[in-house]
Amino acid sequence: MQAIRAVLLAAGQSKRFQPLGDKNFFKLGGRFLIEKQVETLRKAGVKKIIFVANKNNFTRIQKLFPKSDVVMQKNLAEGMRGAVLAAREFLDQPTLVASTNDVVEASAVKKVLNAKNCDGAILAQKVEKYFPGGYLKIGKGRIFSIVEKPQPGKEPSRFVNIVFHFFREPQKLVDKLTKASNKKEDGYEQALNQLFKKQKFVAVENSGEWIALKFPWHALDLTASFLTKQKRKISKRAQIAKTAILEGNVVIEDGVKIFDYAIVKNAWIGKNAVIGNHSLVRDSQISENAVIGSGSEAARSFVGANSWLHRNYVGDSILAENVSLGSGAVCANLRLDEEEIFVDIEGRKIGCGKNKLGCMVGRNSRIGVNTSVMPGILIGKNSFIGSGLVVEKNIPSQTFFTAEWINKAIKNKKVIPARAKLNN
Amino acid sequence: MQAIRAVLLAAGQSKRFQPLGDKNFFKLGGRFLIEKQVETLRKAGVKKIIFVANKNNFTRIQKLFPKSDVVMQKNLAEGMRGAVLAAREFLDQPTLVASTNDVVEASAVKKVLNAKNCDGAILAQKVEKYFPGGYLKIGKGRIFSIVEKPQPGKEPSRFVNIVFHFFREPQKLVDKLTKASNKKEDGYEQALNQLFKKQKFVAVENSGEWIALKFPWHALDLTASFLTKQKRKISKRAQIAKTAILEGNVVIEDGVKIFDYAIVKNAWIGKNAVIGNHSLVRDSQISENAVIGSGSEAARSFVGANSWLHRNYVGDSILAENVSLGSGAVCANLRLDEEEIFVDIEGRKIGCGKNKLGCMVGRNSRIGVNTSVMPGILIGKNSFIGSGLVVEKNIPSQTFFTAEWINKAIKNKKVIPARAKLNN
Amino acid sequence: MQAIRAVLLAAGQSKRFQPLGDKNFFKLGGRFLIEKQVETLRKAGVKKIIFVANKNNFTRIQKLFPKSDVVMQKNLAEGMRGAVLAAREFLDQPTLVASTNDVVEASAVKKVLNAKNCDGAILAQKVEKYFPGGYLKIGKGRIFSIVEKPQPGKEPSRFVNIVFHFFREPQKLVDKLTKASNKKEDGYEQALNQLFKKQKFVAVENSGEWIALKFPWHALDLTASFLTKQKRKISKRAQIAKTAILEGNVVIEDGVKIFDYAIVKNAWIGKNAVIGNHSLVRDSQISENAVIGSGSEAARSFVGANSWLHRNYVGDSILAENVSLGSGAVCANLRLDEEEIFVDIEGRKIGCGKNKLGCMVGRNSRIGVNTSVMPGILIGKNSFIGSGLVVEKNIPSQTFFTAEWINKAIKNKKVIPARAKLNN
Repeated sequence: MQAIRAVLLAAGQSKRFQPLGDKNFFKLGGRFLIEKQVETLRKAGVKKIIFVANKNNFTRIQKLFPKSDVVMQKNLAEGMRGAVLAAREFLDQPTLVASTNDVVEASAVKKVLNAKNCDGAILAQKVEKYFPGGYLKIGKGRIFSIVEKPQPGKEPSRFVNIVFHFFREPQKLVDKLTKASNKKEDGYEQALNQLFKKQKFVAVENSGEWIALKFPWHALDLTASFLTKQKRKISKRAQIAKTAILEGNVVIEDGVKIFDYAIVKNAWIGKNAVIGNHSLVRDSQISENAVIGSGSEAARSFVGANSWLHRNYVGDSILAENVSLGSGAVCANLRLDEEEIFVDIEGRKIGCGKNKLGCMVGRNSRIGVNTSVMPGILIGKNSFIGSGLVVEKNIPSQTFFTAEWINKAIKNKKVIPARAKLNN
Repeated sequence: MQAIRAVLLAAGQSKRFQPLGDKNFFKLGGRFLIEKQVETLRKAGVKKIIFVANKNNFTRIQKLFPKSDVVMQKNLAEGMRGAVLAAREFLDQPTLVASTNDVVEASAVKKVLNAKNCDGAILAQKVEKYFPGGYLKIGKGRIFSIVEKPQPGKEPSRFVNIVFHFFREPQKLVDKLTKASNKKEDGYEQALNQLFKKQKFVAVENSGEWIALKFPWHALDLTASFLTKQKRKISKRAQIAKTAILEGNVVIEDGVKIFDYAIVKNAWIGKNAVIGNHSLVRDSQISENAVIGSGSEAARSFVGANSWLHRNYVGDSILAENVSLGSGAVCANLRLDEEEIFVDIEGRKIGCGKNKLGCMVGRNSRIGVNTSVMPGILIGKNSFIGSGLVVEKNIPSQTFFTAEWINKAIKNKKVIPARAKLNN
Repeated sequence: MQAIRAVLLAAGQSKRFQPLGDKNFFKLGGRFLIEKQVETLRKAGVKKIIFVANKNNFTRIQKLFPKSDVVMQKNLAEGMRGAVLAAREFLDQPTLVASTNDVVEASAVKKVLNAKNCDGAILAQKVEKYFPGGYLKIGKGRIFSIVEKPQPGKEPSRFVNIVFHFFREPQKLVDKLTKASNKKEDGYEQALNQLFKKQKFVAVENSGEWIALKFPWHALDLTASFLTKQKRKISKRAQIAKTAILEGNVVIEDGVKIFDYAIVKNAWIGKNAVIGNHSLVRDSQISENAVIGSGSEAARSFVGANSWLHRNYVGDSILAENVSLGSGAVCANLRLDEEEIFVDIEGRKIGCGKNKLGCMVGRNSRIGVNTSVMPGILIGKNSFIGSGLVVEKNIPSQTFFTAEWINKAIKNKKVIPARAKLNN
């Protein structure tokens, strides 16, 4: 096998991942997702990686991987097709096309790279229930086509396309991409379908873990997976009160302070983070410099760097960097009827597949004391939420959400939060 | 003394005991009230018990006491008169008529059964201040009549009728009951008054404990009494963290889990219940399978089977089975002016006699995060209360109490909760 | 030095110190401020103190200092001028005029008393940034005048007048005071300015601590200073649970009870106070008989005698005597934008100079469960605040602040709290 080259697509806009920013830079265990993805590729045998960036993350990626080639995709409207073409100068030998949208184990990627008797291979995930992705039409040991988001019940197989695509002759892919009549979002899949007519591509079934990283709550799956894999480690440069309890699979990094009567179970606590008196952290990542102020509980959550809690409950929630919650603010994570939680993604209600999900809050946002954020709510970055409110609708970025804001929004018929309904 | 037979009246509708269901099946220390009452009767010397049930609890009582006779009272509008008549076939020998409306000690019942030189005896409770019950007019060593709910100041004595009534010749009672002109609620007392003219009935003063079980908050008296009598016992099949503190008179049943830094004082913790980290339970019953989630406090309260708290304060409150409270929800138990708490019982404000009383919540109800329930509030069964609300009026059963609900209620002029007043 | 006599002005109305009552009787470490001030004077060498009281505190001061002369200032509108004149009968020998408006160290007062080669001396505080007080115009080793509240940038020096004023011949002061044309608030300063023309007064620079006690939040500075100076002491007559943690510089007085898993850091806990389970007290004074109920946190705060918390956060706040907070009530202490906190003092917004300040609550007031009090709010005495509210405006004394009250206030256009804005 010669495929020691990969093109890692990192130019996606992460639109449906908001308010959590660029998914490439979602940081778990002190490392960015893109770093983890690179590690996966290297473990699978990839020797050289070409990064496709966008104008916002180009410099950041260059700095992170100074020895690598980074190309920029200028027109993001061209989707994956444009992304691959942006790297066309490197597509002159066997190449793996990968992305940060899916997280799998290195062994799975290795299997794709080692596929025999074929012109290319695609990682395929068997799904038990409907997943809104591209399904592989397969038979006679080869792939016939990819069917993008078929109607439920109309799937051509139970195998979903995962973007670890190996091309023995990527020049032919470039050829099809260049000629693709559809130059929009699914031009890449269209080109693949053309290619499949001429070349033999095989589906390699993924047998290990698979985490699709499309919607913001998927970051919780990633966090849970990360925590499961970590090995207990407690820094000698952490200050841990004698009465603090560290239970199970915990990692405590340098400079962490854990105060009296705090309890930490199965969690990762980043550098210089503080866990206050009488606090409880379980199955969560508490990022570097974050403060879990006294009397708080974080459960199955991701708390970003420099974020502050104080006497809060944060359940199944994601707080990006530098988010603060006032005393008594609650991120609720369960509906009263205990049914599946739906999230409003760009105007569409998307079921998250679980009955426990809290809120997802963008960086630099603040939530006032005794405010209740309902399950599945998205709060944009740089927003302020007042005190004693109930947040039942997504809050955009850069918004000061107060009783006054609610009132204006009603006049403008933009949103009708629950409290406001009092006025009808 | 031959009276080894009792008719236990268990057909009452427990109307004024709502939302706590059938008082016969109020469960303390893992046993139903009716079981405790039967034990009292047996300890007092009763050998055979005939149960008078209604159509709703008939099967349940039969199953609970498979060797006993259970009769059904069909027309509940006929009150105690109808109840006793339902058992008339058994009223052919000395019989005690008892109910589950009053809880007394076995020694008191024994004194009633052993009353000498009389045709019958009635347990009489001396009261210090007005109690809304039936008062005994007594003199010359006998009872002249029962005066139902006299006006305060007009009581014929300080002795209140408690339904442990012994009849040496119950056939004569049946005779009066049959002929009673008043066939409604107090037909039984009317018949007794007729009987007292012919027969010598004596009042036996109750010298031990007495708990009347009329209104739902009386279940707290029952709980407190139960806890006082229990003896410290900690199951070896319970998992109790080393740092958990068990103080005073506690009973911990099999399968209980008590987490680190939890504190339990003078409480009964039923099978498989969980007491979470940093929680405090004092002077309370936590029923089987209930979960006192982390950071909660239950004080002088009854938490029913399968109920869930999480970071709540529940003071002087009663949560029936399968009630859940969201993080930060509070059952307030003290008025700002620290005056006596009144409860709305079927439209009438009834003083509970104390300045500390929380709420009483029917089974399967849910209360949202950061919601405040005011002292003395009744919440029906199967109701949902939204988040961040203040509940100042009783909530009926099967209601989804949200800002929207409040709004509708205002339009319909049904209730005007405090929040709603904002709209006037 | 003969000045062994002081006139201590204690007749001020403490108007801008409200709702905290008479500042003379603000009680720190079990002693009134006026007692501490007397101690400072005595340590500085003062042998005899004449107190100038008002009609409200006259008896109280007399009782506190039964061997001292106490005179009454009848017309408080005459300010310091009237106050000094009220004591004119004692002004026949070298005298220090002092007040309870400024707290300094005894050594500073001693330096004033020992000033050489002058007719009088005034303690002067060098300020780094603008302070709204009287500035000293000085030069050639003497004071020329006091300029009351000059515009910022127009200060005649960086030295602010502190009321420790020594007069070798106070009769001359009396003469000027009597003749002062301005008989209103600053008649005293006017008389001083007249005096400075005839006599040589010098400025003595304060080199130690200085706490001006003008606005209520200054009581927090006083508390912090007091705590810094105390020495660790734990009464043998206190009941302290084995698992309670006493950290740093703590004083625990007789009769205190500290429950399991409570944490007390750098705090003063007065007689018979109670610190409940899982509570955290840090950098605070908890006055006698106060109860810090379970699960509470008091940080950098003053909790008055007989006050009650229960599951609250009280940050950078002052609760006078007999104040109660319901479970979940929060005294917020930080704006969402983390900017300086302004307080409405008699209609004017005054910056407190810090970005952390909670609320200041007068005696006998009550705050309902889950209510949020915003930073910098003043709540008068004897007021009740309902449950689940957000308090964004000062609350007057004797007010029952509920949704109804808000509604009335809107109609009367008196105040427009945030919640109320929902109705616009």
